[in-house]
Amino acid sequence: MAETTINDYISPMTDTRTIYFATFPGAELLDIAGPAAVFTAANQLSGRPLYRVDVIALPSGEIDHGGGLGLTARAIADIIPGPADTLVVAGGYEAEITRAVADTDLLAGLGRIARQFGRIGSVCSGTFLLAAAGIITDQRVATHWRGAPRLAARFPGLTVDPDALYVRDGDIWTSAGVTTGIDLALAMLEADHGRALKTRVARELVVYAHRPGHQSQFSDVLDAQTRAGDRYGALIDWMQDRLDQPLKVADLAAYCGQTERTFQRRFSAASGMPPARFVETLRMKHGRDLLEAGLAVKQVAGRCGFRSEAAFRTAFRQHFGVAPGQHARMLAV
Amino acid sequence: MAETTINDYISPMTDTRTIYFATFPGAELLDIAGPAAVFTAANQLSGRPLYRVDVIALPSGEIDHGGGLGLTARAIADIIPGPADTLVVAGGYEAEITRAVADTDLLAGLGRIARQFGRIGSVCSGTFLLAAAGIITDQRVATHWRGAPRLAARFPGLTVDPDALYVRDGDIWTSAGVTTGIDLALAMLEADHGRALKTRVARELVVYAHRPGHQSQFSDVLDAQTRAGDRYGALIDWMQDRLDQPLKVADLAAYCGQTERTFQRRFSAASGMPPARFVETLRMKHGRDLLEAGLAVKQVAGRCGFRSEAAFRTAFRQHFGVAPGQHARMLAV
Repeated sequence: MAETTINDYISPMTDTRTIYFATFPGAELLDIAGPAAVFTAANQLSGRPLYRVDVIALPSGEIDHGGGLGLTARAIADIIPGPADTLVVAGGYEAEITRAVADTDLLAGLGRIARQFGRIGSVCSGTFLLAAAGIITDQRVATHWRGAPRLAARFPGLTVDPDALYVRDGDIWTSAGVTTGIDLALAMLEADHGRALKTRVARELVVYAHRPGHQSQFSDVLDAQTRAGDRYGALIDWMQDRLDQPLKVADLAAYCGQTERTFQRRFSAASGMPPARFVETLRMKHGRDLLEAGLAVKQVAGRCGFRSEAAFRTAFRQHFGVAPGQHARMLAV
Repeated sequence: MAETTINDYISPMTDTRTIYFATFPGAELLDIAGPAAVFTAANQLSGRPLYRVDVIALPSGEIDHGGGLGLTARAIADIIPGPADTLVVAGGYEAEITRAVADTDLLAGLGRIARQFGRIGSVCSGTFLLAAAGIITDQRVATHWRGAPRLAARFPGLTVDPDALYVRDGDIWTSAGVTTGIDLALAMLEADHGRALKTRVARELVVYAHRPGHQSQFSDVLDAQTRAGDRYGALIDWMQDRLDQPLKVADLAAYCGQTERTFQRRFSAASGMPPARFVETLRMKHGRDLLEAGLAVKQVAGRCGFRSEAAFRTAFRQHFGVAPGQHARMLAV
């Protein structure tokens, strides 16, 4: 059946591309295993050696990926990549990625080989490593929602997309959190060998070829709220209690005893977003919580200050990339 | 913020549970890395050592998981599991799982330790290993869609659910293909520590707490069609050309020159399903292909022989577990 015809869709390029996964102690194993499964499945389903995977680190040997997970890596200095090859840098939790980013030998090693690759990618907080090594400087990038504001603050030349599951900017492909490495690898596979093989691989791995929604759908921290908290904590509490009511900027300014213009300026500086968007974000966050708690869309719309269910649906879809009902089914507690 | 309160939701059980991943040469690394990431994230987000992960194999040492992926494993004979611990058996592609299932030492080793565990799971074709080792005999189980008919034929005592992303039957938890190991681990986490932590972990990994759809949504092989092909190939071609028309069993029997009753019996035996359900499955498969090719639901309904768009929507949702429009967005070529 279809198995025997898939090669009709694959470009006749015959060279095997190598995907080098750069790792470090404590890196998330899934950041490597997810993308690697995509490339391995491409070989299996096409019956051709389209990809080779390799794991590289500093030093070489068995690298501890947390508890009982030891992955064997070759030395970064030993590899000779070609322009058809890809470097994918894994990420990890905060303590581990912080240590990796402080490892100047690792940064130098990555920086030295990076320009030899035709394509460079990262998964999750691996984007921090690419930035710290100077491999990316002014690209549009993605990273885990938890680290997105920190990445943007630390590397102001980068444009961090807080919504995307992955971002391609020229030869730089960065992805959001953990499992989005699979989405990234599927996108690379599509670029190399077309959509038909990409879809076949997605089916084989029992994963969606296109995931619905944005990364913001998954985040549970309203970072702006945290940042604005010290200065505007009381105001934010006051807003939270009144999300079912109209909250005009004039009302917020009056609460703070400031002119509207001064309030706009100061609040935006403290929270990183204009007051109106801040209120909208609070409404969306509250609406999502209520949906996940099992309330009907109609009830939720009213409690979030929307006059109509339709207006709430539109706003929710714009914010999270999926309809409220679909979200409730997929992310409900 | 929420990080500091999540422990309010976790049961006060303090013992660390160990999740042992049983692997073999050529096993799919993602079958281990996916579930492991769930348990690791649970530790990170709760700030407590809820889980320990360990990789076991026969023999111990570096196990090749395909190309450049070498994972270190301890010897199966060396572990002493407790009733709070879990065994999860990884799967692999056909050649590798076939080799593993023929390894009588591996089967004996798994069989010997299995009864000590409080919970046993498998990912993908790992279900074949559990069955071959005699650890499961008459359970309801899941496995990769590609292997489901083979598993059912080889181990007739098992009830194979071809749709589920994972199945829990008592202490036996089996999952479908590759990435469904993550769904399985999330379900185990929920059973151990409740829904709140499960949802937080899902967000951390940027993965859905509940995936929409059934496994059949991902399968691209109509196995019954293949099986019935030799005997009823011409009939199936004739049906494929007429999916936009009513196809009554009487018509199919007449095409074959058989009485309706004889046809019912013989076709069911050859294909593994009654003719009416076979036709319905062909319609659904055709509808899915057309949706993925970009056709509107209304057009698709007509071409699949449904009188109304609504009837098509209902049938599609029953068959694949998602609405046609949602499916088109997530799995479109």
